[in-house]
Amino acid sequence: MTRPPGDRRAGWRVALGNVVFNNDTPAGRAFDLVLIVLIVASIGAVMFDSVRPFRAAYGPALKQVELVLTLLFSLEYGLRLLTARHPWNYARSFFGLVDLLSILPGYLALLVPGAETLLIVRVLRLLRIFRILKLARYLSEASVLTEAIRASAAKITVFLVTVLTMVTIIGALMYLIEGPANGYTSIPTSIYWAIVTLTTVGYGDIAPKTPLGKGLASLAMILGYGILAVPTGIVTVSLARAQGAQDQGARDHGAQSRRPVPRACPRCGLEGHDPDARFCKRCAEELPST
Amino acid sequence: MTRPPGDRRAGWRVALGNVVFNNDTPAGRAFDLVLIVLIVASIGAVMFDSVRPFRAAYGPALKQVELVLTLLFSLEYGLRLLTARHPWNYARSFFGLVDLLSILPGYLALLVPGAETLLIVRVLRLLRIFRILKLARYLSEASVLTEAIRASAAKITVFLVTVLTMVTIIGALMYLIEGPANGYTSIPTSIYWAIVTLTTVGYGDIAPKTPLGKGLASLAMILGYGILAVPTGIVTVSLARAQGAQDQGARDHGAQSRRPVPRACPRCGLEGHDPDARFCKRCAEELPST
Amino acid sequence: MTRPPGDRRAGWRVALGNVVFNNDTPAGRAFDLVLIVLIVASIGAVMFDSVRPFRAAYGPALKQVELVLTLLFSLEYGLRLLTARHPWNYARSFFGLVDLLSILPGYLALLVPGAETLLIVRVLRLLRIFRILKLARYLSEASVLTEAIRASAAKITVFLVTVLTMVTIIGALMYLIEGPANGYTSIPTSIYWAIVTLTTVGYGDIAPKTPLGKGLASLAMILGYGILAVPTGIVTVSLARAQGAQDQGARDHGAQSRRPVPRACPRCGLEGHDPDARFCKRCAEELPST
Amino acid sequence: MTRPPGDRRAGWRVALGNVVFNNDTPAGRAFDLVLIVLIVASIGAVMFDSVRPFRAAYGPALKQVELVLTLLFSLEYGLRLLTARHPWNYARSFFGLVDLLSILPGYLALLVPGAETLLIVRVLRLLRIFRILKLARYLSEASVLTEAIRASAAKITVFLVTVLTMVTIIGALMYLIEGPANGYTSIPTSIYWAIVTLTTVGYGDIAPKTPLGKGLASLAMILGYGILAVPTGIVTVSLARAQGAQDQGARDHGAQSRRPVPRACPRCGLEGHDPDARFCKRCAEELPST
Repeated sequence: MTRPPGDRRAGWRVALGNVVFNNDTPAGRAFDLVLIVLIVASIGAVMFDSVRPFRAAYGPALKQVELVLTLLFSLEYGLRLLTARHPWNYARSFFGLVDLLSILPGYLALLVPGAETLLIVRVLRLLRIFRILKLARYLSEASVLTEAIRASAAKITVFLVTVLTMVTIIGALMYLIEGPANGYTSIPTSIYWAIVTLTTVGYGDIAPKTPLGKGLASLAMILGYGILAVPTGIVTVSLARAQGAQDQGARDHGAQSRRPVPRACPRCGLEGHDPDARFCKRCAEELPST
Repeated sequence: MTRPPGDRRAGWRVALGNVVFNNDTPAGRAFDLVLIVLIVASIGAVMFDSVRPFRAAYGPALKQVELVLTLLFSLEYGLRLLTARHPWNYARSFFGLVDLLSILPGYLALLVPGAETLLIVRVLRLLRIFRILKLARYLSEASVLTEAIRASAAKITVFLVTVLTMVTIIGALMYLIEGPANGYTSIPTSIYWAIVTLTTVGYGDIAPKTPLGKGLASLAMILGYGILAVPTGIVTVSLARAQGAQDQGARDHGAQSRRPVPRACPRCGLEGHDPDARFCKRCAEELPST
Repeated sequence: MTRPPGDRRAGWRVALGNVVFNNDTPAGRAFDLVLIVLIVASIGAVMFDSVRPFRAAYGPALKQVELVLTLLFSLEYGLRLLTARHPWNYARSFFGLVDLLSILPGYLALLVPGAETLLIVRVLRLLRIFRILKLARYLSEASVLTEAIRASAAKITVFLVTVLTMVTIIGALMYLIEGPANGYTSIPTSIYWAIVTLTTVGYGDIAPKTPLGKGLASLAMILGYGILAVPTGIVTVSLARAQGAQDQGARDHGAQSRRPVPRACPRCGLEGHDPDARFCKRCAEELPST
Repeated sequence: MTRPPGDRRAGWRVALGNVVFNNDTPAGRAFDLVLIVLIVASIGAVMFDSVRPFRAAYGPALKQVELVLTLLFSLEYGLRLLTARHPWNYARSFFGLVDLLSILPGYLALLVPGAETLLIVRVLRLLRIFRILKLARYLSEASVLTEAIRASAAKITVFLVTVLTMVTIIGALMYLIEGPANGYTSIPTSIYWAIVTLTTVGYGDIAPKTPLGKGLASLAMILGYGILAVPTGIVTVSLARAQGAQDQGARDHGAQSRRPVPRACPRCGLEGHDPDARFCKRCAEELPST
């Protein structure tokens, strides 16, 4: 990592930050690998702890493991704060908050006896895997997907408004037709049923019992069937265009040109940097060379 | 809004109609925003009222809220009648009828004691959001979707006839195989089951119990699996073509040309006006300039 | 209808056959319309008859209606036999057999007391609507769909073999893991469960209860999720190509050229006639001019 | 089959290997056909045997059939070992292991009384059908499918990581909201529910009961609805590109050129050979001429 101009961090902080935030050196990659193992272990512990017989048998041991993991994640958080070029920017960033949220419940559970339910917040640690993966070779793939979704945001909004309206009207009609006696206890419950039906999930916890209700449900299902096609069509067309644009870019610029791939800041996660940007426009972290 | 020739409305009616029917002025946008808030509040009240415990606790208060909302919507309906260029055309239009249907149940419930079930008609108010959104920036997106669906209407009809035939024959066969003892009480009920199965909703309220029935159901599911692909394919291809045509249009005409977007009459909602049309061909309302 | 060379039918047979088999004259269209109404009425009667309370109340009346309908359909079958250029070819054709199957159960139920269940065969009458629709304006739409499906037949076969293998192996594994105690009473039943799961129908009549079973089921579902994408992709690509070819054809030949649409023989239903064919290559019936 | 240089097998071994491993001679095709019949019969016997009443009635007869089939498959395995150019390479290959696994349980069940459950491994014989089909005319179709899936492997990985993260977080939240009292007995169970819901399977064995849980479930379903579109879009775009590339290849090279289709080694199943390769780069088996 070349040193950005105006960086007043000490040499060891720069070197350490390189390991913590980047993965273009063997040390950085090793750090990320250890982190992924710890995160997966931590999620495994949370799940394991929620299974009653396991908790009864291994409860105290799991608490020990959790304590060690919390300490390790605290150490990592401290390192990040210490070596970030702008610690306050890191702390306020999305992944900074996720990092903080991942360690707070561990301490709270130690102090406040009834705070065990808060421990579930630890599954948010899973989100941190995204930061690590983002820097890896999946980056360009993810960006095609997010581009495709972003490009069809307006169409998806129209689609969602239509679906919500349909679901409300069908739900209200079924409440009228079937009534509380057949499980449609209120309009919100009926809307829940309509969503379960239109998305073709179909739990069957509530199902129409009157002939008229079955008829309306059949109509709603066939409608839902056709409607299912719309988001698929939207995303497919968007993906085809995003892919086409990427291919076009590759053809236009040739192999030796800069990859027109959105880069994410390794520190604060900000995307959308210009191709010629060398430093993050928000936190001044050096960007990975394209 | 320029004044259309032959318009004999007084100046204040034109100005007020501008606020009520259009949203290209700050006042018009504010009016629409207030309307959306009121509609959402009204739908919320209908839902809230259907939950038994809430009704018991807040019933009288909800009646007051409903009364106020009905009065406000009546005022709005009166304003629309007053300021429309052709009040009778507005009253007979789709949204005119929706507006009327939204306020009638409120008055009926006051007069006739048993008319409470009619109050559900108020969820139709939700449809009015579409009129407002139609004028907003989602217009062009919605039109691509409706164009795509319209273009594949014939294919969808063939598909629906095929599905309905399949569903009837499979339903009749399952009625024969499983019979009333296993829940297939009649052919219409069996057809309902077949629709639930082919659309992959699968409530499980009726499920095959005999080996032969399970075999036929398995076949129907794999068929349904393949059939699910057809509407998706139809809509995707249509969407890709509609999108392609829009892109083509944008390339051909440049930025300063007329947008080739179907316009909806702000009063009666009629679409499909010619590009050079200045007034709605049904209700003579001035159309938004393209 | 010009008379094909070598046709030795009397003049009135040709004229009547024109009404019965074609719909390019007002009389032919009226005949088809009456037929559709009778078919729908007949299907309605079959459904109505299967609902227990209705049968108890209107049983004898329904029998009368059924008798009249059977006589009318017999008359139609006789007319077809009489006016077809090659009666034997018609009788052996797909729609000829459907026509015969539609009337036989009506007579059998009169003669044999216990043959009522056979009456369900009458729903096959619904298939006859396809012959009528095939001649109508939906022809070209249906042909794009069938072309698309035919073009991807090989891909769909590979896909089906893969799915059947997966379903068998997953079913056998679940039988081993969950066993008869949890509802997986035999391997065929487990395969039925696997099909219900992979097609995302999910009745819930059988569901995994052991942790290992739930894990395998989760894996199967995510697999099924991805597999659902394959037939959709196949059909979409095929549809896009069929559509593209049709557009290309329309561009190449211009408006005054022959429509490159597969024609079905109005008598025996054979498709795939050459563009310059004037008569059906199987039953010598005159083909609709392209 | 021309004899590869350096092949030191006796003449009859080469001739027999030709029958056993290839299907480009009548004898080879007959061998494969007999094999498919035996495999299907064997799978049928396994299924039949798992149905309790059948087992009670035909148990001993089924054991005889199974014994004969095991002997026949052993004979086939011996033939393959004997005639393969590199027997050890065949034995270690994927299909070599499947062949071995198909016969071992038959012998084990004879020797060890309690090993009946192992007999289920015999369904793996179904996999052997793929080796046979791979050499047949479906080869090129399967390769388009596998190419399409391989090309989108990175996108599918991103998608799977996202789905697994969502499913874990939604599952943990539902465990918190609904709790063990409503069937969400642990986080893994809740994750199982989330997978059942997001894939729109919806068994209904676990379903939200609290209003908050129903609300979150509704949100998850609508999300799942949109997410369902992503793999479909990915596969469709990949298929369209694979198909386009194949068409392009067919246009570029003409009818007399080499088919650009990936070839599988008839012995060890390895794919990805260069177009000019004559022998398998792993087991030195001669490759089918392209």
